[in-house]
Amino acid sequence: MKQAIVARTDIGMGTGKLAAQVAHASLSAYEQTSKRDRRTWKSGGQKKVVLKGSSERELHELAEIADREGLPTSIVRDAGHTQLDPGTVTTLAVGPGPDDAVDRVTGELSLF
Amino acid sequence: MKQAIVARTDIGMGTGKLAAQVAHASLSAYEQTSKRDRRTWKSGGQKKVVLKGSSERELHELAEIADREGLPTSIVRDAGHTQLDPGTVTTLAVGPGPDDAVDRVTGELSLF
Repeated sequence: MKQAIVARTDIGMGTGKLAAQVAHASLSAYEQTSKRDRRTWKSGGQKKVVLKGSSERELHELAEIADREGLPTSIVRDAGHTQLDPGTVTTLAVGPGPDDAVDRVTGELSLF
Repeated sequence: MKQAIVARTDIGMGTGKLAAQVAHASLSAYEQTSKRDRRTWKSGGQKKVVLKGSSERELHELAEIADREGLPTSIVRDAGHTQLDPGTVTTLAVGPGPDDAVDRVTGELSLF
């Protein structure tokens, strides 16, 4: 079991902002996950990978593929108090879910 | 309500590793939070700040102060498969909790 979080590289987020948006997406997708899958993922150390996404469009496309795989997803939009325009899409979390299903969605992306 | 996540600057984490460790701490502290406080925090947009910590010792000291404030805390140790030695303390999450209580713990730290 793992969770993949895709963060956009094309909007110039600073490190702290990026980390906060990754955490937001991670928690929101986790909350949509079945209790059983939550437990399994946590007992395995809540494995996470953070990956590079190139555009808002790519995040939406990946979310659609993840939906078809039956994986929980969450797309985060920044509130825009700092750095970004309000409503800017920043991150997508996919899973937690089985490694092979998550890889079918995000397997082509580079590690952040 | 907010959550503060303190990440060490003295261990050379890459951006993706740092974001994953911040997410891990965030979720683990959230899981120790009362249902009522979870709901309040989420309805306010699950506000998070990522802050700079200078050492493992500092993270433990801040966690003790947070305990005394009655705030949920979580210290994360990396599994050490990549970049870091196994068991390296990387991040501390404080809250979600009332802004003033979180600020009494982490108010002196710089934004990441």
